[in-house]
Amino acid sequence: MHTPWEKRFAQRTQRMSSSAIRELLKLTEKPDIISFGGGMPAPEVFPVAEFQDACQVVLRDFGPKALQYGATDGYRPLREQIARHTSRYGIDVSADNILITSGSQQALDLLGKVFINRGDHILVESPTYLGALQAWNAYGAEYVTVPMDKSGMNTDVLEEALRAGPKFIYVLPNFQNPTGVTLSINRRQRLIELADQYGVPIVEDDPYGQLRFEGEHLPPVVMLDDVFRGNSHGTYHGNVIYLSTFSKILAPGLRLAWVVAPPEVIHKMVQAKQGADLHTASFTQMVAHEVSRGGFLDQHIKLIRSTYRERRDAMLASMDRFFPPEVDWTHPEGGLFLWGTLPKHINAADVLKVAIEQKVAFVPGEPFHPNGGGHNTMRLNFSYCTPETIQEGIRRLGDAIYQIIGSPVRVS
Amino acid sequence: MHTPWEKRFAQRTQRMSSSAIRELLKLTEKPDIISFGGGMPAPEVFPVAEFQDACQVVLRDFGPKALQYGATDGYRPLREQIARHTSRYGIDVSADNILITSGSQQALDLLGKVFINRGDHILVESPTYLGALQAWNAYGAEYVTVPMDKSGMNTDVLEEALRAGPKFIYVLPNFQNPTGVTLSINRRQRLIELADQYGVPIVEDDPYGQLRFEGEHLPPVVMLDDVFRGNSHGTYHGNVIYLSTFSKILAPGLRLAWVVAPPEVIHKMVQAKQGADLHTASFTQMVAHEVSRGGFLDQHIKLIRSTYRERRDAMLASMDRFFPPEVDWTHPEGGLFLWGTLPKHINAADVLKVAIEQKVAFVPGEPFHPNGGGHNTMRLNFSYCTPETIQEGIRRLGDAIYQIIGSPVRVS
Repeated sequence: MHTPWEKRFAQRTQRMSSSAIRELLKLTEKPDIISFGGGMPAPEVFPVAEFQDACQVVLRDFGPKALQYGATDGYRPLREQIARHTSRYGIDVSADNILITSGSQQALDLLGKVFINRGDHILVESPTYLGALQAWNAYGAEYVTVPMDKSGMNTDVLEEALRAGPKFIYVLPNFQNPTGVTLSINRRQRLIELADQYGVPIVEDDPYGQLRFEGEHLPPVVMLDDVFRGNSHGTYHGNVIYLSTFSKILAPGLRLAWVVAPPEVIHKMVQAKQGADLHTASFTQMVAHEVSRGGFLDQHIKLIRSTYRERRDAMLASMDRFFPPEVDWTHPEGGLFLWGTLPKHINAADVLKVAIEQKVAFVPGEPFHPNGGGHNTMRLNFSYCTPETIQEGIRRLGDAIYQIIGSPVRVS
Repeated sequence: MHTPWEKRFAQRTQRMSSSAIRELLKLTEKPDIISFGGGMPAPEVFPVAEFQDACQVVLRDFGPKALQYGATDGYRPLREQIARHTSRYGIDVSADNILITSGSQQALDLLGKVFINRGDHILVESPTYLGALQAWNAYGAEYVTVPMDKSGMNTDVLEEALRAGPKFIYVLPNFQNPTGVTLSINRRQRLIELADQYGVPIVEDDPYGQLRFEGEHLPPVVMLDDVFRGNSHGTYHGNVIYLSTFSKILAPGLRLAWVVAPPEVIHKMVQAKQGADLHTASFTQMVAHEVSRGGFLDQHIKLIRSTYRERRDAMLASMDRFFPPEVDWTHPEGGLFLWGTLPKHINAADVLKVAIEQKVAFVPGEPFHPNGGGHNTMRLNFSYCTPETIQEGIRRLGDAIYQIIGSPVRVS
């Protein structure tokens, strides 16, 4: 049975289905569920008072401008602020390299609009970020995958994947969503060399790069690419499109992110954005610019890091205590997620059913694998719940896993 | 010469070019140009103080929620507020009929994503809204056009256009952008009957419906369709997708608009929106909800109406005074735009070149015609400039037209 409307849906919508993440977010709205499912920042660290002040300043000093239509590429002082911030990585970028987007999800959608013809292959890590697959499925993308290990995308098999002629390479080098794994410095170099050799551009998605709790900061791929090419002067013209966002360092409820890319890519993405939403809200851009001024963001990121580190530690310690020894998991040095691997014969979806009965939720890993696999994997978010709640949630989840694995019920 | 990036742009981007409107908006940023080019609301009537209060209330009472991720379909209290507001038209709609979008431009983009396969025909008025063409060109749409006259889309020739098998009909019934013309009640009825007979859905774009200065309010097409079908009870399930926006009644800088549609359309658009930008900013939705509460919006719309009426009157009076008698123009009963028609042998683009030298700008009408035509037409915006500036701008524009038409230079 189809309604008259459904008969008219475009072919491409056949591959568009509600994401597992979004469906799970609905569950997390029930107050009695402990959710490791979403990717939500800790609400306790949102700088509410700073936002109150910034809203007043923006409306008092620039009210009509903040409420009026703005430029498609973004509020210029914010683009300049981001250019200066990006230059701290050691590459020269100008405001001409910067596009403000309505969240990084829009950047992914615009990349699909600008680059992907139906049937084009995109080279992705497996597993990879589900939201990217969702955005690009709507443009008829196919995927060629490179497996992950504990040092990120395995560049030893990258060359073979590049021979498939992908349109671009999509990589999340820092504390990857979903695995929490970081791409090693040697592999970053190898990625850049191979991408250059095969003439394939790189899309570097880096929402969490500043949220490192331990270990050494690694330069972003865009910066290494710039060095590889002999350094830009003034404006970047290299082989990488770099994405980042205010969602994880300030507040996701603003829907504010940015793209760093060569000017001709920015120009084409601006045209695509004109048709997609004209521009990102003037008001939120001006408020974010005001909040971020004067070094506040650097201070604030320190608070986020220490908060998330404590939560990650609580999750790791609880997993050590409550999970069966057959389960393996990653040890992220930053970010919001870690990745669990159950024994091969266990299906994470079965665990989830029991877990929900026990009032705890996570995201099964399978949907993060565009070409299948990962039935026995799970993504756990540690940023949203307090350490006490994390401990209780992991205890319940451990019980659920024991129920499925079939080991004797533990005395908890 | 193509850069490596440009060689990788998708086929669809060949039809994506910077819109004339957006290019002109750049000109309007020069302070010495009087611009009738954009579609910007009067900045003088933005309710800045009310926004200041609303930001404080929202951040004080719901800070973490306002800064956190939200649901893709929108902030539920805002959807309910819009459902109640829509029900005032005399149709029963529920929150299940409502989707919040990042401006109406996003609604147009999502319609493209959900409905348009490459080569599909969309039935549009000629001229029609340029932003819709921009959104749908990216999905490979073709157009079948129905001419406008002073009562809107000419429904006498609609049936012939429907035989081309369009995917949907796109109509702007009130104070159309670009012409300022309103679709008569008889033609609304005829449109609904023919759309039903041919099984073709209608997309009704109504950004200005509440901005009527004179004449009688006409019921929206969605309401007439509901009556035609015997009235909905609780939730609308008819043949119309209705779009409206906060941009013209509150502030465009929020990027907030909404769709009213049958639930299965809303569901599919929500899936498309997940991939496009996850959701519209929680903060701006909550602020708009707070500002709109308690009848403020009704009061505020009265102020906008009287402001725009005064400006329209100033423009009409100045055109009577300063334009050559060979020029014809519409007399809009509301909205933001009027439409001028020059003698057939005159090209509006030539007038624009002279006009810009005289420091006045408008949008030539040609790009609003998807299948060509309209070289001698021009869109004039009367909402943005004060009456004094409008008079001066029309005086300059009259001079420019006289220069092109070649009549003796007037003593002004």
